[in-house]
Amino acid sequence: MGKLFRCVTGLMALSWAGVGVAAAELTDTQTIAATVRDRAMSGQSVAWSLLSELTTDIGPRPAGSAAERAAAEWAATKLRGFGFANVSLQSFPMVAWQRGAERLELLGQRGPQLLAATALGGSPPTPAPGLEAEIVAFPSLQALQAAPPGSLTGKIALVTRKLVVTQDGTGYLAALGARSAGPTEAASRGAIAFLMRSLGTDGHRFPHTGSTRYSGETGPIPAFALGAPDADQIERRMRSGEKVKVRLFSSASFTKNAQSQNVVAEIPGKQHPQEVVLIGAHLDCWDLGTGAIDDGSGVAIVTAAAQLILEQPRRPKRTIRIVLFGSEEVTQPHNAPLGDKVYARAHAGEMPSHVLTGESDFGAGWIYSVSLPRGLADTPFAATLRELLIPIGTDISKWDAEHTGTDVKPLVDLGVPSFKLNHDGSLYFNYHHTADDTLDKIEPATLSQNVAAWAAVVWLAADTDVNFRESARP
Amino acid sequence: MGKLFRCVTGLMALSWAGVGVAAAELTDTQTIAATVRDRAMSGQSVAWSLLSELTTDIGPRPAGSAAERAAAEWAATKLRGFGFANVSLQSFPMVAWQRGAERLELLGQRGPQLLAATALGGSPPTPAPGLEAEIVAFPSLQALQAAPPGSLTGKIALVTRKLVVTQDGTGYLAALGARSAGPTEAASRGAIAFLMRSLGTDGHRFPHTGSTRYSGETGPIPAFALGAPDADQIERRMRSGEKVKVRLFSSASFTKNAQSQNVVAEIPGKQHPQEVVLIGAHLDCWDLGTGAIDDGSGVAIVTAAAQLILEQPRRPKRTIRIVLFGSEEVTQPHNAPLGDKVYARAHAGEMPSHVLTGESDFGAGWIYSVSLPRGLADTPFAATLRELLIPIGTDISKWDAEHTGTDVKPLVDLGVPSFKLNHDGSLYFNYHHTADDTLDKIEPATLSQNVAAWAAVVWLAADTDVNFRESARP
Repeated sequence: MGKLFRCVTGLMALSWAGVGVAAAELTDTQTIAATVRDRAMSGQSVAWSLLSELTTDIGPRPAGSAAERAAAEWAATKLRGFGFANVSLQSFPMVAWQRGAERLELLGQRGPQLLAATALGGSPPTPAPGLEAEIVAFPSLQALQAAPPGSLTGKIALVTRKLVVTQDGTGYLAALGARSAGPTEAASRGAIAFLMRSLGTDGHRFPHTGSTRYSGETGPIPAFALGAPDADQIERRMRSGEKVKVRLFSSASFTKNAQSQNVVAEIPGKQHPQEVVLIGAHLDCWDLGTGAIDDGSGVAIVTAAAQLILEQPRRPKRTIRIVLFGSEEVTQPHNAPLGDKVYARAHAGEMPSHVLTGESDFGAGWIYSVSLPRGLADTPFAATLRELLIPIGTDISKWDAEHTGTDVKPLVDLGVPSFKLNHDGSLYFNYHHTADDTLDKIEPATLSQNVAAWAAVVWLAADTDVNFRESARP
Repeated sequence: MGKLFRCVTGLMALSWAGVGVAAAELTDTQTIAATVRDRAMSGQSVAWSLLSELTTDIGPRPAGSAAERAAAEWAATKLRGFGFANVSLQSFPMVAWQRGAERLELLGQRGPQLLAATALGGSPPTPAPGLEAEIVAFPSLQALQAAPPGSLTGKIALVTRKLVVTQDGTGYLAALGARSAGPTEAASRGAIAFLMRSLGTDGHRFPHTGSTRYSGETGPIPAFALGAPDADQIERRMRSGEKVKVRLFSSASFTKNAQSQNVVAEIPGKQHPQEVVLIGAHLDCWDLGTGAIDDGSGVAIVTAAAQLILEQPRRPKRTIRIVLFGSEEVTQPHNAPLGDKVYARAHAGEMPSHVLTGESDFGAGWIYSVSLPRGLADTPFAATLRELLIPIGTDISKWDAEHTGTDVKPLVDLGVPSFKLNHDGSLYFNYHHTADDTLDKIEPATLSQNVAAWAAVVWLAADTDVNFRESARP
């Protein structure tokens, strides 16, 4: 499936050259939309070079790190170089988490076996000699939640739930509770540590990290994700009736006075500069990989799409604002504000004039549809958009935009209408939050299609008078 | 391709039940060959349970380790339990290599990046503070060999050669020189360490280890294999003109008085017990994974094939001897004898009555052909064998058996005729010598086909009067 799909998309992109609109000097809305689409589709965007630089020269850039700062400075330099206006860094304080040395051993009569496992973001360290205890396994978070108080005293809880492959990522959202709530649920029943089968769809020994949230009265306990074959190994041992024990070590630590930042840049609108179409992505990524799919590709896609618009002979009516958010991947004690809320608070007064927002944070799979604000799917705006997108394999979704991205959620909560470009995410959770999230996992031709769709949608939204708030009214 | 192939093989195996020969009570040669084939094909062999126990309960079992010893004792217990005769352990001394902590960092203006890399087997440790130097890259071993003496003084050599995917493993054999000879070639030109792109066909961040040989006058230097994306990362950095530096650390160590062992077991022949058909596999595996494809599957296949023969109502004419070799994966200073040579020396007097030998050491991909000793392909023996194997998707190869396995090579060098069952190895080097070589990479239906082919071939070879030495004469 995956391979066939990639072949088809590759052919579509290859055959695109030459189909472009010849009349690039025309400046009406639809002609410019087609122009930016076609330039992207034929590979004439900066997306690949941006993604390659970000993942190669900077590499891993966890929230609050010096590398995340370097990425922000790199992005600001790039944006200024392209000619964007009002490029600035929006800094904020945070508590940063750093992975330390870590080790998980499966114990047994025939000596310990080292398992592939990694601490979840925010997991406290273990005591220096490590922790050693018996595992109690649960098929799901719900089963763990059904365990009586005190039933896990001195034990290590393991949730073995498998992630279901879905095109739209709903398989992940359905299983996410185990990672976010599992450690607290286990701790409140007496567990001294928490393990989970990784939230991944691959069968490789790459554990998938990700942030967890500690709440409640019990203190935080160390929490690890296991590679799929490693979770299998434990389950096979348990099936033979054996009491399975593991030894766990982590020297993770926290930096209280860390700093993170958003990067903001604009194409000022010609007619209604106060009206803002905000497009986002996040600059931070997990420390294990180089963050190509999550979310280097998002950074590359939105920047390259806007850069193509910037090259056009005239400006759009409305302002296009890029925000490259900091610290998307992590949570903070007491929900202290990170990039998403820092932006929303700093621009609270402008919210009524934020006309539309969307984020690219689901990799670089083929974009098969665009979700629009409620009520817009059957309008002339949507019809125009469909005509532009069908030639690149993208339709208007029958579903309204809902979960549009973590970073723009505070804006959506404040009433800003949102759109979403829906990537095929069937392969996304093979790599998500693992060491294997690297540049080679991105298909250049598909990345070009992503930029083409974004450029067309963003241009059209910024060069229209349509009031997306009106359309969204029930 | 891979997925389609697996679908087809799965269907073949599933549809097999019920096609079996009804007259299981018949005891002529071909009927028994068909019986063991059909029982294996319908999943009624011990292969999967053996492989699951070996990889789950024992797990990693590097040469000379306590785990390798535990595997040998487990195997001997299993073989006795099945009813094999003359089960014994053949112990020998060796120098064992142990991986320590290891770390490779790509240095640069924006801070170090941790790369996925692992020491080659036999690599000496680095000095305690590690080594730090500039990389000089070569596209191949040949290019490294062309570098002038002294040209690498104080540098780290990197060979970037990619492995070519081939069905028969020749892609690996063609590239193997970089790993075996590369470190010595680099050292003799002044290099302080050696790096190589892993000998792998995957695109994951799993470095592939494997043994290297140090020779010549220069002392051994630390040698590491890089994950494919990590080699890409270095190459991208170099392409931008940057002088690329890395920092390398390994605390690998050696145990001088280690011990390894072969496990030997027999089905004594009824008419010519002195005539031996020797079938082998190796019990040790690299420390990173649990050795499912290399070579737990070989152990499971040859043992399960022989066990099916043992269940039959009569014995074969000739003796079938299983040898599960120790320490296949490593080399020794001054070529001190390991499992292969220890067996050949201990049984030197019996060599003339070793009528045929073969080893299973290329994973558990579909067996598509059988290579026979020279001159045998057009004989009635081959015709009978072809008739038995074509129904399970295996033909007689037009190529004579050549490289039949490391462990039986000393026997072949002493004139013992050899055969080889040719697995589809297209996927083998995705996992070979990595942490990802685990049980889940084995397809149960394909493993059943492997056992079916082995059982039929071994039974037929042991129940014939054909003199394979005669056929092999030029």
